[in-house]
Amino acid sequence: MKTSFTSVSRRKFLAGTSGLAIGTMLGSSATRAMAAVLDDPQATQLASAQWKDKAPFDLSKSPYAKLKPVPVSAVVIQEGFWSKRRATNINSSIPSMHVELIQHGRMDNFLRLEGKSDAPQRGPVYSDSDMYKWIEAVGFVLQSGDQPKLREIAHTDIKEIVAAQEPSGYLNTYFVQANAKDRMQWQIQTTGHELYCLGHMLQGAIAYYRATGDPTLLEAGMRMVDNFLLPNYGPGKNQKPIVAGHPEIEMSLIELYRTTGNQKYLDLAGYILQGDTREPLTPRQITYMYCGIPFTSRTRLEGHAVRAMYACCGATDYYLETGDPAYLKTLEALSVDLVEHQLYVNGGVGARSEGEAFGDAYELPNARAYGESCAAIGNMMWNARMLAGTGKAIHADVIERALYNGINSGMSLDGTTYCYRNPLAYDPVADAGDRHTPSGKIRNPWYDTTCCPPNLERTFASLPAYFFSTAPDGIYVHLYDNSELRWKLDSGNAISITQTTRYPWEGNVAMRVSPAHPEEFTLHTRIPAWSRHTTVKVNGKPTGTPAAGEYLALRRTWAANDQVEIAFDMTTQVVHANPAVADDTGRITLQRGPIIFCMEQLDQAEQAPERFPFMTAKLAAETTSKYEPNLLDGVVSLEHPGTIEESSSASALYSTGPVKRTTSNTSFKLIPYYAWANRAPSSMQVWIPYVES
Amino acid sequence: MKTSFTSVSRRKFLAGTSGLAIGTMLGSSATRAMAAVLDDPQATQLASAQWKDKAPFDLSKSPYAKLKPVPVSAVVIQEGFWSKRRATNINSSIPSMHVELIQHGRMDNFLRLEGKSDAPQRGPVYSDSDMYKWIEAVGFVLQSGDQPKLREIAHTDIKEIVAAQEPSGYLNTYFVQANAKDRMQWQIQTTGHELYCLGHMLQGAIAYYRATGDPTLLEAGMRMVDNFLLPNYGPGKNQKPIVAGHPEIEMSLIELYRTTGNQKYLDLAGYILQGDTREPLTPRQITYMYCGIPFTSRTRLEGHAVRAMYACCGATDYYLETGDPAYLKTLEALSVDLVEHQLYVNGGVGARSEGEAFGDAYELPNARAYGESCAAIGNMMWNARMLAGTGKAIHADVIERALYNGINSGMSLDGTTYCYRNPLAYDPVADAGDRHTPSGKIRNPWYDTTCCPPNLERTFASLPAYFFSTAPDGIYVHLYDNSELRWKLDSGNAISITQTTRYPWEGNVAMRVSPAHPEEFTLHTRIPAWSRHTTVKVNGKPTGTPAAGEYLALRRTWAANDQVEIAFDMTTQVVHANPAVADDTGRITLQRGPIIFCMEQLDQAEQAPERFPFMTAKLAAETTSKYEPNLLDGVVSLEHPGTIEESSSASALYSTGPVKRTTSNTSFKLIPYYAWANRAPSSMQVWIPYVES
Repeated sequence: MKTSFTSVSRRKFLAGTSGLAIGTMLGSSATRAMAAVLDDPQATQLASAQWKDKAPFDLSKSPYAKLKPVPVSAVVIQEGFWSKRRATNINSSIPSMHVELIQHGRMDNFLRLEGKSDAPQRGPVYSDSDMYKWIEAVGFVLQSGDQPKLREIAHTDIKEIVAAQEPSGYLNTYFVQANAKDRMQWQIQTTGHELYCLGHMLQGAIAYYRATGDPTLLEAGMRMVDNFLLPNYGPGKNQKPIVAGHPEIEMSLIELYRTTGNQKYLDLAGYILQGDTREPLTPRQITYMYCGIPFTSRTRLEGHAVRAMYACCGATDYYLETGDPAYLKTLEALSVDLVEHQLYVNGGVGARSEGEAFGDAYELPNARAYGESCAAIGNMMWNARMLAGTGKAIHADVIERALYNGINSGMSLDGTTYCYRNPLAYDPVADAGDRHTPSGKIRNPWYDTTCCPPNLERTFASLPAYFFSTAPDGIYVHLYDNSELRWKLDSGNAISITQTTRYPWEGNVAMRVSPAHPEEFTLHTRIPAWSRHTTVKVNGKPTGTPAAGEYLALRRTWAANDQVEIAFDMTTQVVHANPAVADDTGRITLQRGPIIFCMEQLDQAEQAPERFPFMTAKLAAETTSKYEPNLLDGVVSLEHPGTIEESSSASALYSTGPVKRTTSNTSFKLIPYYAWANRAPSSMQVWIPYVES
Repeated sequence: MKTSFTSVSRRKFLAGTSGLAIGTMLGSSATRAMAAVLDDPQATQLASAQWKDKAPFDLSKSPYAKLKPVPVSAVVIQEGFWSKRRATNINSSIPSMHVELIQHGRMDNFLRLEGKSDAPQRGPVYSDSDMYKWIEAVGFVLQSGDQPKLREIAHTDIKEIVAAQEPSGYLNTYFVQANAKDRMQWQIQTTGHELYCLGHMLQGAIAYYRATGDPTLLEAGMRMVDNFLLPNYGPGKNQKPIVAGHPEIEMSLIELYRTTGNQKYLDLAGYILQGDTREPLTPRQITYMYCGIPFTSRTRLEGHAVRAMYACCGATDYYLETGDPAYLKTLEALSVDLVEHQLYVNGGVGARSEGEAFGDAYELPNARAYGESCAAIGNMMWNARMLAGTGKAIHADVIERALYNGINSGMSLDGTTYCYRNPLAYDPVADAGDRHTPSGKIRNPWYDTTCCPPNLERTFASLPAYFFSTAPDGIYVHLYDNSELRWKLDSGNAISITQTTRYPWEGNVAMRVSPAHPEEFTLHTRIPAWSRHTTVKVNGKPTGTPAAGEYLALRRTWAANDQVEIAFDMTTQVVHANPAVADDTGRITLQRGPIIFCMEQLDQAEQAPERFPFMTAKLAAETTSKYEPNLLDGVVSLEHPGTIEESSSASALYSTGPVKRTTSNTSFKLIPYYAWANRAPSSMQVWIPYVES
């Protein structure tokens, strides 16, 4: 079932690394040693490549990237807001998810093909991708420093996965035996997720390779591309048509191009993005799958939200490599569609449960919001690429909105349970029958379609790379938390930037900027769109004119220990939705810094009725905030005056004429949205009915 | 393919009726003649039965029916609100729908099995039911008087349908040839609609039989039940399990019991309602299909709305025959769930497009409302049965709400196009991609799942039967329109009631009550829940204390030409939804009499922006109304003061702090909801944002 080469190269690699701790120790000498024993030109190419210190999407050589993200390894996130989440990710989420994956047969699917398991195939067609995304998460973890246990588990898994590869290069545990006849058939391509699985295999393989230098999984992925895919599918007369089905292959092929330098991968990605029209898809397929027609003919976000976001990622990657202006034009139009019509206040996207899809413009229901964790992650991944391509702060604002709210909500505080949906209002009784919460709980340790949990894990593991970018004129600061950057400017001058802050709870950020030797460059520091009044000092002197929603360009000759002090406006803000958002009519929500707040029933006054709609906020009243170290691992909570209506005064579904309401004054308590559903089951709402007074 | 009996009996029936106009002429003598030539005991049983003058659900012998609906033939609806709709139904809808059915191969499906067509099977598994519902509509039309062309078409169709029946009694054009292996397999029962098609066959056959005395289709249906279904499916040891899949068979079997007096049909309906648990269904199937467990274990409306409504119809029919208190208890709980949590203001039900399903309590989205026409009809059919079982006016209020609004909206004014969905807000641009409006239009002449059009047709055709019921103590008046009842009291005393009114545009109804000879009885006349101040006079003298949402019981000795004058309160009322309906927060709608109103974009001031959300009604302002004879076939329209906001003042999706809005005063024009989407494509909304001032 496997090539002799695979087993040889794996054995040699294992021999070569035996006893070595990977990470700091598996440096270039080990790689060279490894390359020397490999007898395959592809592997040699990889092994001699610069595998270390690459960003998750490596734009270091991308000609149309205005900004270039730093590697995960360049930033150490220190104790602060994200450190606990990231520790939980490593110590709890990733290990417990592996146990779940094993228990649900995701590795047995591979072992079965090697005669090492009698278990039948388990899980949906895309189940292989669960393993690949988990390996990718481990890859990003290892890029921040070795974790021997995780590395060993991933190493073993990779060994078994690769052993299941067929001599043809084909590797997919679903389309085998009786299902092999469906392999890459045209209509199966649209739903079978074979290229989706391959894409995740490549992404996982690249992250692991960039962490360890171990090319085993990456070589397997390349064999499937080189030996199975490229010869048989594509524009050639003797080739069969190809369609992504669930976009993902595009960005992974382009990352493979970035990893190997081989143009053929970029070209295939471009061909898939162009849409193979030899076998036309139905209009519904074209909408739902967000592929199959030229990407540049798209005018709006529609269809399956994760598919659309991943397609946009691939298309942006394609633009970053080719500079094709038609792509940029389309991407910018879609970006406007996103932020003007389709974006939830928590950064989530994909309003509809039916088809896990974008809705109409302004269709943003709250209780029925789908807001899949994967879609919010896709949104962040896309906007990170758009940020690199355009340098526009709007994309960083979207990243921050999604990251702190609709993504961060996806993983429980203890890291062991996950939201598939991220609704903006919730009733645990009503939700018991939901298709994606059959347990009656919004957070679950496992979903049979378990795309979201490892997606969250890879996102938190790769987070350091989202903090900074370099640019020809200097460096960009996108996110704020206690952290230290150790990287280099485009000039080659080493630079360290340390951030000291209690962000997002407090608005002061102290940055120490230390180039190895003095150099004139621009420090572009982001002023979030929500910070109406910001002051920035350089070495104690107010500097520049900070504008909300822009980068403040601080150009000077920077020298070691230069100090930048930023004070953001942390006033709690009342947020109104556009009147065209029918679901938010008569409602407001509260935002403080990047954090969106919500009400949970269990925090409210004793006399509060079971359903929130009987509670009304007083718009003109003042909100108070306080940090509560013992609440939800430490959060700022809000209090806002309002009234409670006796629900008995309005039991009819419809009432005519002046409705008498009996109300009493109360104070609403709000917590950060991301922390909801971490205590007892409780109703929740983000958007709160209000009265003007 | 067919029994020799069938062809014999059909030929003889044809011979017997040749040259006769059906309706008045096909009276009991023709029936007796027909019975004499039939050599089948079943047919004899039918032919000797009282086939004429039966209500659509005939409760004349139902022991637990407090009220007994009158036959369609007992009421002539005269020129007024419903007359045009009913004439359009006969002259336009029913004929044009037959053309569509033929063009879409619905009859070819039958003819193919007789070797008379080469066309392949067309349409979904439930396509046979389209023909049966169309025949049922014709049956109800013929109960109001002969329509020779329609009768001839139906007669020909029935002949061909019956000719396709197999000797076993089985008749379904989908589960034949390659699909025959799936016939009534357990999992196919859950989705294959075989019993659903049979149920509609029985209902269509009974309506046609009660119109014409022609038992051809009914006998075929009985053969399928007697020879195929009853021997093979049921509780017996040698019988296979049975599940409705899509409830419909239950109420049709009970109507067959009422038609034949044969207890076995009632028993089978009861067995299906009890749920055959030998093959347990999944929880999701049980929710979605609203069958498969004891009906009496249901506590809420959920799952597929039409399935749930039809199941409730069957369960209520079962209660009406058996008096089982467990059924009544369940039905009353479900009825409370309906009116307190699940009923749209237009009488529609089924909030969710996904699964065409009920949502959570109070989940009543507007633009995304599913509100399938069939579900509103099912709601009306169920409440008509509940009204018969309980005598409670709440059920008549639900019937009126659904009939005048969410059902009446389902058919265009010209009768040739239909709504599948009946949303409460609409944007023709956004809706273009909807699954049930692939044409980009909300009204279409044809849907491949064309359940709604013939369902609307049978409803309007059967409408006269919903106007009155008899009861042991007298007679009930449920609906108001120019009409004449000619029927008999339980005493046998003939009675005529004429209504003269401009209802629903005006509130005065004059009734002339004329028993054949004077008799003391109670005239229960309905005071709709919306009529806050009602006066009732008998022979010029104010009588009784009319209470909104109750029947006013007028007990006296009535004699020929007694006059009842009713004045309902037609003040336009502002309707608020329960605060728990999140989608209606900050919104009102307007109701006048039974009519719910809506705004269409094309009626608004020139400066009105394209989207309604920028238009806000002034709550305290007064509404004016006027009758416009040339608007939409004649309607009362409303004008209500409000403001228009310049949409440019709020282009951001989210805004913080005090939002500046530029507004100008305007007047909103509203039309009856049922008449929307009968002019150029235009945005529409029922629920309107408001300000208190």
